[in-house]
Amino acid sequence: METQVATKQEMFISTEAMRTHWQGHRSLTRRVIEAFPEDKLFDFSIGGMRPFSELVMEVIDIADRGMDGLASGTWEEVQSFDHNGNMPKTKEDMLKLWDNVTEKIDAQWPSISSAHFQKVQVAFGQYENANYATLLYFVDNEIHHRGQGYVYLRALGIEPPFFWER
Amino acid sequence: METQVATKQEMFISTEAMRTHWQGHRSLTRRVIEAFPEDKLFDFSIGGMRPFSELVMEVIDIADRGMDGLASGTWEEVQSFDHNGNMPKTKEDMLKLWDNVTEKIDAQWPSISSAHFQKVQVAFGQYENANYATLLYFVDNEIHHRGQGYVYLRALGIEPPFFWER
Repeated sequence: METQVATKQEMFISTEAMRTHWQGHRSLTRRVIEAFPEDKLFDFSIGGMRPFSELVMEVIDIADRGMDGLASGTWEEVQSFDHNGNMPKTKEDMLKLWDNVTEKIDAQWPSISSAHFQKVQVAFGQYENANYATLLYFVDNEIHHRGQGYVYLRALGIEPPFFWER
Repeated sequence: METQVATKQEMFISTEAMRTHWQGHRSLTRRVIEAFPEDKLFDFSIGGMRPFSELVMEVIDIADRGMDGLASGTWEEVQSFDHNGNMPKTKEDMLKLWDNVTEKIDAQWPSISSAHFQKVQVAFGQYENANYATLLYFVDNEIHHRGQGYVYLRALGIEPPFFWER
Protein backbone atom coordinates (compact mmCIF):
# COMPACT_ATOMS: atom_id res chain seq x y z
CA MET A 1 0.00 0.00 0.00
CA GLU A 2 2.76 2.39 1.02
CA THR A 3 4.66 1.49 -2.15
CA GLN A 4 1.64 2.16 -4.34
CA VAL A 5 1.27 5.63 -2.89
CA ALA A 6 4.96 6.38 -3.36
CA THR A 7 5.06 5.32 -7.00
CA LYS A 8 1.83 6.88 -8.28
CA GLN A 9 1.79 10.38 -9.75
CA GLU A 10 1.63 13.14 -7.16
CA MET A 11 -1.01 15.82 -7.73
CA PHE A 12 0.20 19.37 -8.28
CA ILE A 13 -3.27 20.91 -8.73
CA SER A 14 -6.76 19.43 -8.84
CA THR A 15 -9.11 19.73 -11.82
CA GLU A 16 -11.51 21.93 -9.83
CA ALA A 17 -8.70 24.25 -8.65
CA MET A 18 -7.50 24.52 -12.25
CA ARG A 19 -10.98 25.62 -13.39
CA THR A 20 -10.97 28.30 -10.68
CA HIS A 21 -7.45 29.37 -11.70
CA TRP A 22 -8.40 29.71 -15.37
CA GLN A 23 -11.63 31.56 -14.61
CA GLY A 24 -9.64 33.97 -12.43
CA HIS A 25 -7.44 34.72 -15.43
CA ARG A 26 -10.50 35.09 -17.66
CA SER A 27 -11.98 37.60 -15.24
CA LEU A 28 -8.79 39.68 -15.47
CA THR A 29 -8.67 39.42 -19.28
CA ARG A 30 -12.29 40.62 -19.43
CA ARG A 31 -11.32 43.73 -17.46
CA VAL A 32 -8.39 44.34 -19.83
CA ILE A 33 -10.82 44.22 -22.79
CA GLU A 34 -13.07 46.70 -20.95
CA ALA A 35 -10.10 49.02 -20.29
CA PHE A 36 -9.57 49.59 -24.05
CA PRO A 37 -11.28 52.57 -25.67
CA GLU A 38 -13.74 51.19 -28.24
CA ASP A 39 -11.79 52.36 -31.30
CA LYS A 40 -8.34 51.38 -29.97
CA LEU A 41 -9.55 47.86 -29.23
CA PHE A 42 -10.07 47.36 -32.95
CA ASP A 43 -7.37 49.47 -34.59
CA PHE A 44 -4.41 50.11 -32.26
CA SER A 45 -1.27 48.01 -32.46
CA ILE A 46 2.52 48.16 -32.10
CA GLY A 47 5.26 46.83 -34.37
CA GLY A 48 2.93 45.36 -37.01
CA MET A 49 1.18 43.13 -34.47
CA ARG A 50 -2.56 42.42 -34.46
CA PRO A 51 -4.95 44.79 -32.64
CA PHE A 52 -6.05 43.54 -29.20
CA SER A 53 -9.50 42.62 -30.60
CA GLU A 54 -7.89 40.01 -32.85
CA LEU A 55 -5.77 38.59 -30.03
CA VAL A 56 -8.93 38.35 -27.90
CA MET A 57 -10.91 36.63 -30.66
CA GLU A 58 -8.14 34.03 -30.93
CA VAL A 59 -8.39 33.44 -27.17
CA ILE A 60 -12.23 33.19 -27.34
CA ASP A 61 -12.15 30.79 -30.25
CA ILE A 62 -9.49 28.50 -28.78
CA ALA A 63 -11.34 28.30 -25.44
CA ASP A 64 -14.70 27.72 -27.18
CA ARG A 65 -13.59 24.99 -29.58
CA GLY A 66 -11.09 23.71 -27.03
CA MET A 67 -13.86 23.00 -24.52
CA ASP A 68 -15.74 21.15 -27.26
CA GLY A 69 -12.69 18.98 -27.87
CA LEU A 70 -11.92 18.36 -24.20
CA ALA A 71 -15.49 17.69 -23.12
CA SER A 72 -16.50 15.54 -26.11
CA GLY A 73 -13.22 13.64 -26.29
CA THR A 74 -13.20 14.23 -30.06
CA TRP A 75 -11.09 17.00 -31.53
CA GLU A 76 -12.28 18.59 -34.75
CA GLU A 77 -9.68 19.76 -37.26
CA VAL A 78 -9.06 23.49 -37.15
CA GLN A 79 -6.73 24.98 -39.71
CA SER A 80 -6.63 28.52 -38.41
CA PHE A 81 -7.89 30.74 -35.62
CA ASP A 82 -7.96 33.82 -37.83
CA HIS A 83 -11.21 35.76 -37.87
CA ASN A 84 -11.54 37.07 -41.37
CA GLY A 85 -14.92 38.74 -41.55
CA ASN A 86 -16.06 37.10 -38.33
CA MET A 87 -14.99 39.88 -35.98
CA PRO A 88 -17.59 41.46 -33.66
CA LYS A 89 -18.14 45.14 -34.50
CA THR A 90 -18.34 46.44 -30.92
CA LYS A 91 -16.68 45.89 -27.55
CA GLU A 92 -20.10 44.97 -26.14
CA ASP A 93 -20.57 42.20 -28.70
CA MET A 94 -17.07 40.91 -27.99
CA LEU A 95 -17.77 40.82 -24.25
CA LYS A 96 -20.97 38.85 -24.92
CA LEU A 97 -18.98 36.21 -26.80
CA TRP A 98 -16.48 36.24 -23.92
CA ASP A 99 -19.21 35.66 -21.31
CA ASN A 100 -20.80 32.84 -23.32
CA VAL A 101 -17.49 30.97 -23.28
CA THR A 102 -17.05 31.63 -19.55
CA GLU A 103 -20.43 29.95 -18.90
CA LYS A 104 -19.59 27.10 -21.26
CA ILE A 105 -16.37 26.35 -19.37
CA ASP A 106 -18.19 26.19 -16.03
CA ALA A 107 -20.90 23.98 -17.52
CA GLN A 108 -18.64 21.49 -19.33
CA TRP A 109 -15.57 21.34 -17.08
CA PRO A 110 -17.01 19.00 -14.40
CA SER A 111 -17.59 16.31 -17.05
CA ILE A 112 -13.85 16.08 -17.85
CA SER A 113 -12.12 13.44 -15.73
CA SER A 114 -8.58 13.42 -14.39
CA ALA A 115 -7.85 10.41 -16.61
CA HIS A 116 -9.05 12.31 -19.67
CA PHE A 117 -6.76 15.26 -18.84
CA GLN A 118 -3.82 12.79 -18.71
CA LYS A 119 -4.73 11.25 -22.10
CA VAL A 120 -2.60 12.14 -25.13
CA GLN A 121 -4.70 13.34 -28.08
CA VAL A 122 -4.22 15.39 -31.23
CA ALA A 123 -5.87 18.72 -30.39
CA PHE A 124 -7.58 20.44 -33.31
CA GLY A 125 -6.21 17.69 -35.57
CA GLN A 126 -2.70 19.14 -35.31
CA TYR A 127 -1.21 19.37 -31.80
CA GLU A 128 -0.39 16.07 -30.13
CA ASN A 129 -0.12 16.44 -26.39
CA ALA A 130 -1.59 15.34 -23.08
CA ASN A 131 -4.93 17.11 -22.71
CA TYR A 132 -3.72 18.87 -19.53
CA ALA A 133 -0.84 20.36 -21.56
CA THR A 134 -3.26 21.42 -24.29
CA LEU A 135 -5.44 23.16 -21.70
CA LEU A 136 -2.40 24.85 -20.14
CA TYR A 137 -1.50 26.07 -23.61
CA PHE A 138 -4.91 27.80 -23.86
CA VAL A 139 -4.37 29.55 -20.52
CA ASP A 140 -0.73 30.43 -21.26
CA ASN A 141 -1.67 31.82 -24.67
CA GLU A 142 -4.31 34.01 -23.00
CA ILE A 143 -1.78 35.33 -20.45
CA HIS A 144 0.75 35.92 -23.25
CA HIS A 145 -1.62 37.98 -25.40
CA ARG A 146 -3.10 39.80 -22.40
CA GLY A 147 0.44 40.84 -21.40
CA GLN A 148 0.73 42.32 -24.89
CA GLY A 149 -2.55 44.14 -24.30
CA TYR A 150 -0.98 45.68 -21.19
CA VAL A 151 1.75 47.21 -23.36
CA TYR A 152 -0.85 48.58 -25.80
CA LEU A 153 -2.73 50.16 -22.87
CA ARG A 154 0.46 51.67 -21.42
CA ALA A 155 1.41 53.03 -24.84
CA LEU A 156 -2.07 54.63 -24.94
CA GLY A 157 -1.47 56.20 -21.52
CA ILE A 158 -4.05 53.93 -19.84
CA GLU A 159 -3.37 52.19 -16.52
CA PRO A 160 -4.17 48.44 -16.91
CA PRO A 161 -5.91 46.42 -14.15
CA PHE A 162 -3.57 44.96 -11.50
CA PHE A 163 -2.12 41.65 -12.72
CA TRP A 164 -2.61 40.00 -9.33
CA GLU A 165 -6.35 40.80 -9.07
CA ARG A 166 -8.46 37.93 -10.41
CA MET B 1 -14.05 2.45 -1.88
CA GLU B 2 -15.87 3.77 -4.94
CA THR B 3 -17.20 6.65 -2.85
CA GLN B 4 -13.72 7.52 -1.58
CA VAL B 5 -12.40 7.74 -5.12
CA ALA B 6 -15.35 9.86 -6.23
CA THR B 7 -15.01 12.36 -3.38
CA LYS B 8 -11.24 12.84 -3.35
CA GLN B 9 -9.61 15.58 -5.40
CA GLU B 10 -8.98 14.67 -9.02
CA MET B 11 -5.51 15.42 -10.37
CA PHE B 12 -5.26 17.93 -13.22
CA ILE B 13 -1.47 17.78 -13.55
CA SER B 14 1.23 15.97 -11.59
CA THR B 15 4.07 17.70 -9.76
CA GLU B 16 6.65 16.25 -12.17
CA ALA B 17 4.66 17.34 -15.26
CA MET B 18 4.37 20.82 -13.75
CA ARG B 19 8.16 21.04 -13.37
CA THR B 20 8.56 20.06 -17.02
CA HIS B 21 5.90 22.60 -18.03
CA TRP B 22 7.62 25.43 -16.13
CA GLN B 23 11.07 24.54 -17.42
CA GLY B 24 9.65 24.56 -20.97
CA HIS B 25 8.49 28.11 -20.38
CA ARG B 26 11.86 29.03 -18.87
CA SER B 27 13.63 27.69 -21.95
CA LEU B 28 11.49 29.95 -24.14
CA THR B 29 12.02 32.98 -21.89
CA ARG B 30 15.79 32.39 -22.08
CA ARG B 31 15.59 32.55 -25.88
CA VAL B 32 13.60 35.78 -25.68
CA ILE B 33 16.37 37.29 -23.49
CA GLU B 34 18.92 36.13 -26.08
CA ALA B 35 16.90 37.71 -28.91
CA PHE B 36 17.34 41.22 -27.44
CA PRO B 37 20.27 43.31 -28.66
CA GLU B 38 22.55 43.91 -25.65
CA ASP B 39 21.76 47.63 -25.33
CA LYS B 40 18.00 47.31 -25.94
CA LEU B 41 17.74 44.67 -23.22
CA PHE B 42 18.77 47.30 -20.68
CA ASP B 43 17.37 50.56 -22.06
CA PHE B 44 14.43 49.98 -24.43
CA SER B 45 10.86 50.29 -23.21
CA ILE B 46 7.35 51.38 -24.28
CA GLY B 47 4.82 53.60 -22.49
CA GLY B 48 6.97 54.23 -19.40
CA MET B 49 7.28 50.54 -18.62
CA ARG B 50 10.46 48.89 -17.30
CA PRO B 51 13.11 47.65 -19.77
CA PHE B 52 13.01 43.89 -20.40
CA SER B 53 16.12 43.40 -18.20
CA GLU B 54 14.18 44.60 -15.17
CA LEU B 55 11.19 42.39 -15.95
CA VAL B 56 13.58 39.44 -16.30
CA MET B 57 15.33 40.20 -13.01
CA GLU B 58 11.95 40.21 -11.27
CA VAL B 59 11.23 36.78 -12.78
CA ILE B 60 14.68 35.47 -11.75
CA ASP B 61 14.35 36.77 -8.22
CA ILE B 62 10.81 35.45 -7.67
CA ALA B 63 11.80 31.98 -8.94
CA ASP B 64 15.00 31.98 -6.88
CA ARG B 65 13.51 33.05 -3.56
CA GLY B 66 10.26 31.26 -4.39
CA MET B 67 12.06 27.92 -4.62
CA ASP B 68 13.68 28.66 -1.25
CA GLY B 69 10.24 29.22 0.25
CA LEU B 70 8.60 26.22 -1.38
CA ALA B 71 11.43 23.77 -0.72
CA SER B 72 12.20 24.88 2.85
CA GLY B 73 8.56 25.32 3.85
CA THR B 74 9.48 28.66 5.42
CA TRP B 75 8.81 31.87 3.54
CA GLU B 76 11.09 34.81 4.22
CA GLU B 77 9.61 38.30 4.12
CA VAL B 78 10.32 40.14 0.88
CA GLN B 79 9.21 43.74 0.60
CA SER B 80 10.09 44.32 -3.03
CA PHE B 81 11.48 42.63 -6.11
CA ASP B 82 13.06 45.83 -7.41
CA HIS B 83 16.70 45.60 -8.33
CA ASN B 84 18.16 48.95 -7.43
CA GLY B 85 21.87 48.69 -8.04
CA ASN B 86 21.72 44.90 -8.20
CA MET B 87 21.25 44.62 -11.97
CA PRO B 88 23.74 42.53 -14.01
CA LYS B 89 25.70 44.70 -16.45
CA THR B 90 25.62 42.32 -19.42
CA LYS B 91 23.25 39.88 -21.11
CA GLU B 92 25.79 37.12 -20.48
CA ASP B 93 25.75 37.77 -16.72
CA MET B 94 21.93 37.84 -16.75
CA LEU B 95 21.82 34.49 -18.56
CA LYS B 96 24.21 33.02 -15.96
CA LEU B 97 21.83 34.05 -13.18
CA TRP B 98 18.98 32.57 -15.24
CA ASP B 99 20.76 29.23 -15.66
CA ASN B 100 21.61 29.01 -11.96
CA VAL B 101 17.94 29.27 -11.09
CA THR B 102 17.03 26.68 -13.74
CA GLU B 103 19.42 24.21 -12.06
CA LYS B 104 18.12 25.12 -8.61
CA ILE B 105 14.52 24.37 -9.66
CA ASP B 106 15.48 20.92 -10.98
CA ALA B 107 17.48 20.19 -7.83
CA GLN B 108 14.90 21.31 -5.25
CA TRP B 109 11.60 20.49 -6.95
CA PRO B 110 11.55 16.72 -6.21
CA SER B 111 11.68 17.44 -2.46
CA ILE B 112 8.34 19.29 -2.57
CA SER B 113 5.40 16.96 -1.90
CA SER B 114 1.89 17.10 -3.32
CA ALA B 115 0.59 17.78 0.19
CA HIS B 116 2.96 20.74 0.55
CA PHE B 117 1.74 22.21 -2.76
CA GLN B 118 -1.86 22.02 -1.40
CA LYS B 119 -0.88 23.75 1.88
CA VAL B 120 -1.92 27.39 2.37
CA GLN B 121 1.00 29.59 3.40
CA VAL B 122 1.89 33.28 3.34
CA ALA B 123 4.41 33.55 0.49
CA PHE B 124 7.15 36.13 0.99
CA GLY B 125 5.38 37.19 4.21
CA GLN B 126 2.63 38.86 2.19
CA TYR B 127 0.64 36.64 -0.19
CA GLU B 128 -1.60 34.04 1.45
CA ASN B 129 -2.45 31.25 -0.94
CA ALA B 130 -2.14 27.52 -1.55
CA ASN B 131 1.47 26.85 -2.54
CA TYR B 132 0.35 25.49 -5.94
CA ALA B 133 -1.37 28.84 -6.62
CA THR B 134 1.76 30.71 -5.54
CA LEU B 135 3.86 28.63 -7.93
CA LEU B 136 1.36 29.19 -10.76
CA TYR B 137 1.64 32.90 -10.04
CA PHE B 138 5.41 32.71 -10.65
CA VAL B 139 4.88 30.98 -14.01
CA ASP B 140 2.00 33.25 -15.05
CA ASN B 141 4.00 36.35 -14.13
CA GLU B 142 6.87 35.07 -16.31
CA ILE B 143 4.51 34.47 -19.27
CA HIS B 144 2.95 37.92 -18.73
CA HIS B 145 6.27 39.78 -18.78
CA ARG B 146 7.66 37.66 -21.60
CA GLY B 147 4.60 38.57 -23.69
CA GLN B 148 5.53 42.18 -23.07
CA GLY B 149 9.06 41.40 -24.23
CA TYR B 150 7.55 40.10 -27.48
CA VAL B 151 6.01 43.54 -28.09
CA TYR B 152 9.35 45.24 -27.36
CA LEU B 153 11.05 42.92 -29.89
CA ARG B 154 8.36 43.55 -32.54
CA ALA B 155 8.65 47.30 -31.97
CA LEU B 156 12.42 46.89 -32.53
CA GLY B 157 11.75 45.03 -35.79
CA ILE B 158 12.99 41.72 -34.35
CA GLU B 159 11.12 38.44 -34.85
CA PRO B 160 10.60 36.76 -31.43
CA PRO B 161 10.94 32.97 -30.94
CA PHE B 162 7.76 30.96 -31.64
CA PHE B 163 5.52 30.95 -28.55
CA TRP B 164 4.73 27.26 -28.95
CA GLU B 165 8.36 26.09 -29.01
CA ARG B 166 9.55 25.13 -25.53
